[in-house]
Amino acid sequence: MQLVPGPVPVAPPPSGPLVERVAIIGLGLMGGSLGLALLQGGLAQEVAGYDRQAEAIQAAGQLGAINHQATCPEEAVAGAEVVILAVPVGTLSQVAGAIAPALAPGTIVTDTGSVKGAVVRELESIFQPRAFYVGGHPMAGSERAGIKAADRYLLENAVYVLTPTPATDAGALQRLEELFRAVGARVITLEPEEHDLVVAGISHLPHLLAVSLMQTAGELAREHPLALMLAAGGFRDTTRIAAGDPVMWRDIFLHNRQAILTLLKCWRRQLEALEGMIARGDGEDLEAALQQARSLRAQVPVRQKGLLPALHELVVTVPDQPGVIGAMATALGNAGINIIDIEILRVREGEGGSIRLGFTTAAAAAKALEILQSRGINARML
Amino acid sequence: MQLVPGPVPVAPPPSGPLVERVAIIGLGLMGGSLGLALLQGGLAQEVAGYDRQAEAIQAAGQLGAINHQATCPEEAVAGAEVVILAVPVGTLSQVAGAIAPALAPGTIVTDTGSVKGAVVRELESIFQPRAFYVGGHPMAGSERAGIKAADRYLLENAVYVLTPTPATDAGALQRLEELFRAVGARVITLEPEEHDLVVAGISHLPHLLAVSLMQTAGELAREHPLALMLAAGGFRDTTRIAAGDPVMWRDIFLHNRQAILTLLKCWRRQLEALEGMIARGDGEDLEAALQQARSLRAQVPVRQKGLLPALHELVVTVPDQPGVIGAMATALGNAGINIIDIEILRVREGEGGSIRLGFTTAAAAAKALEILQSRGINARML
Repeated sequence: MQLVPGPVPVAPPPSGPLVERVAIIGLGLMGGSLGLALLQGGLAQEVAGYDRQAEAIQAAGQLGAINHQATCPEEAVAGAEVVILAVPVGTLSQVAGAIAPALAPGTIVTDTGSVKGAVVRELESIFQPRAFYVGGHPMAGSERAGIKAADRYLLENAVYVLTPTPATDAGALQRLEELFRAVGARVITLEPEEHDLVVAGISHLPHLLAVSLMQTAGELAREHPLALMLAAGGFRDTTRIAAGDPVMWRDIFLHNRQAILTLLKCWRRQLEALEGMIARGDGEDLEAALQQARSLRAQVPVRQKGLLPALHELVVTVPDQPGVIGAMATALGNAGINIIDIEILRVREGEGGSIRLGFTTAAAAAKALEILQSRGINARML
Repeated sequence: MQLVPGPVPVAPPPSGPLVERVAIIGLGLMGGSLGLALLQGGLAQEVAGYDRQAEAIQAAGQLGAINHQATCPEEAVAGAEVVILAVPVGTLSQVAGAIAPALAPGTIVTDTGSVKGAVVRELESIFQPRAFYVGGHPMAGSERAGIKAADRYLLENAVYVLTPTPATDAGALQRLEELFRAVGARVITLEPEEHDLVVAGISHLPHLLAVSLMQTAGELAREHPLALMLAAGGFRDTTRIAAGDPVMWRDIFLHNRQAILTLLKCWRRQLEALEGMIARGDGEDLEAALQQARSLRAQVPVRQKGLLPALHELVVTVPDQPGVIGAMATALGNAGINIIDIEILRVREGEGGSIRLGFTTAAAAAKALEILQSRGINARML
């Protein structure tokens, strides 16, 4: 395992494209975003794209995510130095089988699937030794799916996991690392099985618990209809991921079955210990366990992309009137202070509300506090 | 069970105080907020307050949350028509026992504990028949605790559950309903046991799962140190409640033991069904279960306080520069459009970011869209 690299320094514009021709199969959020970053960042001369849906190919062309609209996967990959498979995990092996015969010897192939162990073994057996395959998992998402949500900067500061194996070509790994770093991602390498265990713990297991929790609340609501109505705040946070795409998550669960079942066992031990403490009224152990969970929680990074520096925050109490956020944000903007996070904590029609503001540095937060207070605005450090 | 009332209409200022003297024992976030609302809203002539910590009494006096600083609980409740016990669930029965002998006959007593069944039975046996006791649970919180976080508007639009029993005096219940409605809360009544089962499902069980999930991630991180570093986004949301106060949650778990253990059983059935589908690779049932959870999730109300009308939302893509939020919010404010929710979805240093804006009406959202687009700002309806 490699240490996570720090923030990517602002890179000088590359002197020329890193790669002549890239092929992207699957033009959804990830495929489209990679295409945009490669073409608009001048990192690739040509990006050929194919998707099962003709409209996605057209949309990708219009957006500038690809500059070669292929009519079949074989045409897309012909002559490509790097091929990126950005299709759902459930269709990866079928797509790989279809394009493998069309690859020039020495082509570098990677995928963007969120499960790696079984996928990597299967794709290696399909591509090697003719082409060089390295598994990948860009850990970035959006509130939207599909090519229309594609975003040139989706991968900026996102962790991009590459999963080499003993069979991986070192040169191919290095070229992919360079390419994805140039896109702005923080590239790390993990063994495929370690990747699967870690994402099972921090993504797949939480998803499973959120789903089962939602189902329990649904069952409760059958006899007590108020239950869902009263479920606000914390419950919404805990179950947000249960709103994810059912087909995508079905595939993830089935493809990462082994790691998920292993983590479920580990987690069941934890829950049963807590259940036991509650059942026998053991307040001391219960408090210690809650304290431990709270300390662990404090170690989870704050920003969506996981590895950005900590936020420096203020909470401001303002009247809930049109223009008040504008006046406040303008005052800070005029002073050259950039708000990088903002959240309305509580709102009351026609009355005061609390707003949380985030800044990248302690100095910026302190200056913002001074400016707001000098204008009679009730603000405090978090 | 009662249907949840709709949004509270803007009430005319009360013609006079609803109650002469209120006593609040326990001057934390909830006690302080109730005091502020009662005194500053002109709903009570006098609010006497007591807390174990002398500084809290002083702070409450300075804030205007009480206008009589009592030196002991007995002094606070002497001559009060309404007594509110806003102490932690774990100390309720002790405090109740201490004040009971000092109450004038016919005094109305309520508490703010988040567990009701056992608490209500115990406090009824302490107070009845000399005083009239009705259990209560104001479902509102803040990101902060303690008297300094007290907020006159904390209860506005929040659900306030009262839990009458066959032994409850109808007149006392009615007076408390009037008082808490005047404070701006949406008062509903539930049987104590039904209250406990519902909050076990939507609050206590989610908390327990978040804690066990955090512990599992901690165990995973012992061998795979990257796990916590990679745990961003969804994981943070799911485990946010695990950062709650360990002592408060210990008391809640121990006092609502029965309902929590019941809900755990129900939930375990759901999880084991999901686990079985994964273990035997049953994609069809798994997808159906995920689809069901997603539909249920869509029924959970959006706003923190649970019962406000749905938001109408835009997503705006803007350059990440000082002043840009201010310019945008000012343009909307100048047009009389009130932003009631704002969230920065993604931020990149010196580059574009996505901001979600929420409005109370579809018309306001549509007008905002028009204004932003007319200024060349990339915005779309969610």
